[in-house]
Amino acid sequence: MQLSAWGAQMSRLSGIRTIMEDIALAGRAGAGGEWLNLSPGNPALIPEVVETWRELTREALDERFVEASCRYGPSRGSDTLVDAIVQYFNTTYGWSIGPENVLVGPGSQMLCFLATTLFTGPHTSGNRPLVLPRLPDYTGYQGLGLQDGGVVGIEPLVVREGERAFSYAVDVEALRRHGDAGMLLLSNPANPTGCSISAEELRALVDTATELDAPLVVDNAYGEPFPGVVETRLAPLLHPQVINCFTFSKAGLPGERVGFAIGSAEHIGPMVSFMANAALHAPQLVQAVVERALTTRRIDVLTTKVVKPYYRAKRHMAESLLHDALPSDVDWRLHSSDGGMFCWLWIDHDWFDDLRLYELLKRKRMFVVPGRHFFIGPLTTPFLAGHGTRCVRLSLSSDEWAIAEGIARLAEALEELRRTS
Amino acid sequence: MQLSAWGAQMSRLSGIRTIMEDIALAGRAGAGGEWLNLSPGNPALIPEVVETWRELTREALDERFVEASCRYGPSRGSDTLVDAIVQYFNTTYGWSIGPENVLVGPGSQMLCFLATTLFTGPHTSGNRPLVLPRLPDYTGYQGLGLQDGGVVGIEPLVVREGERAFSYAVDVEALRRHGDAGMLLLSNPANPTGCSISAEELRALVDTATELDAPLVVDNAYGEPFPGVVETRLAPLLHPQVINCFTFSKAGLPGERVGFAIGSAEHIGPMVSFMANAALHAPQLVQAVVERALTTRRIDVLTTKVVKPYYRAKRHMAESLLHDALPSDVDWRLHSSDGGMFCWLWIDHDWFDDLRLYELLKRKRMFVVPGRHFFIGPLTTPFLAGHGTRCVRLSLSSDEWAIAEGIARLAEALEELRRTS
Repeated sequence: MQLSAWGAQMSRLSGIRTIMEDIALAGRAGAGGEWLNLSPGNPALIPEVVETWRELTREALDERFVEASCRYGPSRGSDTLVDAIVQYFNTTYGWSIGPENVLVGPGSQMLCFLATTLFTGPHTSGNRPLVLPRLPDYTGYQGLGLQDGGVVGIEPLVVREGERAFSYAVDVEALRRHGDAGMLLLSNPANPTGCSISAEELRALVDTATELDAPLVVDNAYGEPFPGVVETRLAPLLHPQVINCFTFSKAGLPGERVGFAIGSAEHIGPMVSFMANAALHAPQLVQAVVERALTTRRIDVLTTKVVKPYYRAKRHMAESLLHDALPSDVDWRLHSSDGGMFCWLWIDHDWFDDLRLYELLKRKRMFVVPGRHFFIGPLTTPFLAGHGTRCVRLSLSSDEWAIAEGIARLAEALEELRRTS
Repeated sequence: MQLSAWGAQMSRLSGIRTIMEDIALAGRAGAGGEWLNLSPGNPALIPEVVETWRELTREALDERFVEASCRYGPSRGSDTLVDAIVQYFNTTYGWSIGPENVLVGPGSQMLCFLATTLFTGPHTSGNRPLVLPRLPDYTGYQGLGLQDGGVVGIEPLVVREGERAFSYAVDVEALRRHGDAGMLLLSNPANPTGCSISAEELRALVDTATELDAPLVVDNAYGEPFPGVVETRLAPLLHPQVINCFTFSKAGLPGERVGFAIGSAEHIGPMVSFMANAALHAPQLVQAVVERALTTRRIDVLTTKVVKPYYRAKRHMAESLLHDALPSDVDWRLHSSDGGMFCWLWIDHDWFDDLRLYELLKRKRMFVVPGRHFFIGPLTTPFLAGHGTRCVRLSLSSDEWAIAEGIARLAEALEELRRTS
């Protein structure tokens, strides 16, 4: 069988997929006691959240089934959902967008894929890559480029904060050297770190995007306005060069794959056409569901009263457990977080290796995500060898008992790693 | 704004989209009397069909909401749906496929896009196009190629049958001359003609695909096993070189965008990876819905007892009205149909032009689809100029009164066209 050059590229799976297979297999094997899973990107199953979405789905089914499920719809998204999005953002943030600025898609992964394909790759000026301006970032971005080398990432600046904390900053100078970027893309607050971009960093990104005439795509999967798992409540930036992506996944509907993009008509228009060509349109019953969540503002109640406090409490609990449990003579640091659904740990020792930790924890029937998968580039680069392989991501979506027990096993594993290296 | 070469291509919309915009605008304008719409590709809203899907959706919502909607799922499709598909096809057709042969997607348009991108385009041997071996064919295929010239079509042989009928045959010799095809794709029975491929033609296509080491994708949107709007009930062909695509759209769920592909693991594997990279997975509540339709075999009851008889009756009615109403001294012919949801008319006169007819009917507040959009290539080619622009598609999904009144207006319009040309 012969794959095209694009095919060779798109049939590759990022390293993290191997781990997801691992976890799926462990889950299916079932037997032999419970696994502790601190790896999931899945949001927590919070009863109020589940019940609200179930109710909204039932209402949509009762009232909108025929027009939604039994008819083809517009590629931009159903007229009423697009209007609801326009209203919601104009009211919430004082914007004045219209339907021409909106595209609903079957998940924001697909919206990012459409944008990457439209704006990166072969240009008359040569090949322009997708640039991730702030590593580490969501592993799913690595699979977006149709060409080998189509996705590149910029190593961050590492800032130590006190004894046990650290943070990353955008290396603006390094970004400016990427004069060939076709598009910039980042999650904000970031998966895995929970780091929100500062106003100054955002300005630098927008300036760079403007100079390059390349869109800056900001993936607000964890941020404002939903799920709102972010402490500094800054409005998304409305700017001609920025495409903002939003999803309902982290607000409780990951399995239904519904997201939307807001940007200038100049950027959104081609994305709508591409959607028409590649998938016709997003599924529609769930469009009626999220429309209802927006027009009734039940989404705001959910996120501010339930989802955000839930993750804030989980984060506090995890932080305090980490401080109590991890060996005090190990140089471990937690990325200071503005939100998100994860803890991002850095264990800065020669004896530490994220894959060895992964294997050791697997023997203890527990899963975490090795840090290296959130970076791009050969493991031989000094930054990846010296930092990227010394990080690990823990999920806050797991049950409290699992987080507590998981952190205890992590502490044991660190001791073992140190002893045996 | 700078689009990549792919972007320039994918932001184009095929000619038929202009017409869809036309129709959408007319629908919204609303005022000024009813429009007759004989253009839709939408399946008819048959009450038993709508009620069955609504019921199945309610059951899925009651029993499967949390696992379906509130969790991410496998890129291949939910385990239980994939198993249900395997069981259904193995039982129905005596196949022995496994989960490795199946991929569920958010609509079969996307499955076709994934396959086209994987198997056509830049190869080490040069650029390989997507070849549509039997024009006219579904207009949506024209938007699948990321490169200019990436989709080509082969003119059919035209066979006159008696006074008022005709059919197309695959020009196998012309196909064999396309030694560079990366993939072959056709709808069967075809949209727009309702033509089913003959066993001999299919063999020729499979042989060609095998020689080229290119997959043959057969889009069974109108055929077996659902919606089964086809008279010659031939099983889809299980063959290592064939990828069969199936959809629930024409069985009543077009708005939910759920389809699946069955093929060799060698072809399906890369498609699963591409799905993971580009969209994670298909939406899941509807996966639980169609799983239930398959495991209970309610889909079979629907298609054999309701959908197929419905379109057969509509076709008989339309045929008889056409024979009664169209001017007897006009050389019009109806493509002999094996199924599908359309009538495909050929009006073989110099004075006829499909776009002029479209405009004339629009003034009579009626929509049809001009024939040219189902062909590929410059209108100056002899075949398109002499045949492709002399065809028109009428939908059988419209209400009976609309079909009757529409055919009467079409007859008037033909007289007017002849008089004024």
